[in-house]
Amino acid sequence: MSRNEKSHLVIIGGAEDKSGECEILKRFFSLAGGRKADICVISTASTNPETGAQYRDIFTDFGAANVSLLAIQSREEANQPHYRSSFAEKTGIFLTGGDQLRITGILGGSVLGQAMQESYRQGAVVAGTSAGASAMSTTMLVGGVDEATPSKEIIRMAPGLGLLSDVVVDQHFAQRGRIGRLLAAIAHNPYIQGVGIDEDTAIVISGGSVCEVIGTGTVAILDGRQSRHSNVSESSPRQPLALTDVKLHILCKGYRYDLQKRLVSIPQVKEDI
Amino acid sequence: MSRNEKSHLVIIGGAEDKSGECEILKRFFSLAGGRKADICVISTASTNPETGAQYRDIFTDFGAANVSLLAIQSREEANQPHYRSSFAEKTGIFLTGGDQLRITGILGGSVLGQAMQESYRQGAVVAGTSAGASAMSTTMLVGGVDEATPSKEIIRMAPGLGLLSDVVVDQHFAQRGRIGRLLAAIAHNPYIQGVGIDEDTAIVISGGSVCEVIGTGTVAILDGRQSRHSNVSESSPRQPLALTDVKLHILCKGYRYDLQKRLVSIPQVKEDI
Repeated sequence: MSRNEKSHLVIIGGAEDKSGECEILKRFFSLAGGRKADICVISTASTNPETGAQYRDIFTDFGAANVSLLAIQSREEANQPHYRSSFAEKTGIFLTGGDQLRITGILGGSVLGQAMQESYRQGAVVAGTSAGASAMSTTMLVGGVDEATPSKEIIRMAPGLGLLSDVVVDQHFAQRGRIGRLLAAIAHNPYIQGVGIDEDTAIVISGGSVCEVIGTGTVAILDGRQSRHSNVSESSPRQPLALTDVKLHILCKGYRYDLQKRLVSIPQVKEDI
Repeated sequence: MSRNEKSHLVIIGGAEDKSGECEILKRFFSLAGGRKADICVISTASTNPETGAQYRDIFTDFGAANVSLLAIQSREEANQPHYRSSFAEKTGIFLTGGDQLRITGILGGSVLGQAMQESYRQGAVVAGTSAGASAMSTTMLVGGVDEATPSKEIIRMAPGLGLLSDVVVDQHFAQRGRIGRLLAAIAHNPYIQGVGIDEDTAIVISGGSVCEVIGTGTVAILDGRQSRHSNVSESSPRQPLALTDVKLHILCKGYRYDLQKRLVSIPQVKEDI
C-alpha cells in the first residue's frame, strides 16, 4: 500500500512492560502525539474484556487527550458505516494480543478495517502486540508449533492486514523457541524477510522501511534472498526442511534495519577520550 | 588433533530412536564394524546405571562381537593404568547423555580419556548423544538457558574432549529452543561454527571435516565468519546480544556440510523420466 512517509508502525513481541518504564508503550504514545493523542485501542483479537481495558487505562494514565476502546467481536459491528468518518481524527491505533485470525477474520475488508488502513496512510501510528504484531503484514503466520524441527507442517499462513509488505512477523520469539516456524515461513518464499521479535521488544518502522529496535530483548532478522537451495517444493509436509545460506541478524536496542535495502545500521558509540 | 582419515564421529542430538529402525545407532554399529565390532559404552555423563546398560543391551542385540560398559564415576577409576592398553582393540566408543561436565571433569586428561583419544586417532568411531555430543569439541557448551534472548549471561563454556575443532555443538536443538544460546556461543568467537542438532538426528563426521546429516530432524549450522559486527566485547553480561550477517543453514537427512570448506552439499535427486 502507498503510505505517508511520516507513518509509523510499532510491532511488539508481546509481554511488553506495562508497569515500569513502559519504554515501548510510551514510544507509541509519543508517536501518536503524546498529550494531544487521540488513540483507539482495538481488542478484537481477544475475547477477554480486560485485555483492551488495560491498554485504555494505560494510555489514559499517560495523559492522552482521547482514548477509545473498540472491543469488536463480529463483522456486523466492524461494518457499521460511522467508522468511515470516526477514524479520520485518530492519531494512534493499538491492536492487542489474542488470536490474529480474529483480527483479520473480523476486521479484514470491513469498514473499520479500511478506515484503519486509511488512518495509517494519513499518518496515524499503528501498534500491535503479540497477535496484533503478527497481523500487520501482507501475509501473516496464523499459528505454528513452537520448539519444532522446521517443516511445512508446523505452520499455517494467511493474508494479514497488509500494513507491511515482504515481511512475516513472529512474536514471543526467543521465549517460545520459534526460529523453526519462522524459517519454515521464509522457506515458502525466500524473498520474504522473517522478523522474530522477543517479548518486551519492538520494532518501530518509519516510512514503511526503516526499523528501529527498542525494548529489553532482541529481534532476529532472517533474510533468505541469497539462499541457494531449499527442499520446500519437493518435500512432503512432515519432512524436515532444508534451507541453505540464510542471512541472520540478531539486533538489540538502538540497532536499525532497513527492510528495503536489507542493511543493518549500528548505533554510534561515544568514544572515550 | 591429528586424525586418521578413516576416523568417524557420530554426534547425536539426543533422544535417538532405540526401538524402531534405530537408524542412528545402527549407523554407529556399522561404522564400528558391525558384527565384528568391539564397542565400549561410557556412561560417565550419567549417575543412573540404567543409562549405560540400555546402550550395552542395544549393541549386544545388534550382534556386536564384544560390548563393554564403563560406568566410571571418578578420576581415580579413570586413571587405572590398564586402560592404556585395554582400549587398543576398541572399534567403537559410545558416550551416553547426562552432564557433559561429568565427562570432561572425570575423563579429561585421565588415562581413559587419553586412551579414548588414541583410539579415535587409530580409526575407532566415537559417538556421543546429548551431553556426549556436546563434549566432543575443543570448546563445549557446559550449559545455558533454553528459550532465552541471546546474551553472554545465558551460556557457560569450557574445554571439551577436543575430538572436533572450530565447532560448538548444541543438542535437543529445536525441541528446547536453543538458537539463542548457540548464537551467544558463536558471538564470543565468530570463527567457530555453531552446530545445533535436533533430537533423533545426528551428524556423521568423516576425516574430521565432512558431516552427513542422518535421522528424522534437522541440523542448524551457524557460520559467523562473515559477521560484520557484534556487541559482545562491549556489552554487559545481561545485555542482549547483537550479531549481524551470520550465515544459517538448516539441513536434513542426506545433506552434507564440509566444516573446513564451510560448504553445503545437496543430495542428488533421481529425476523422473
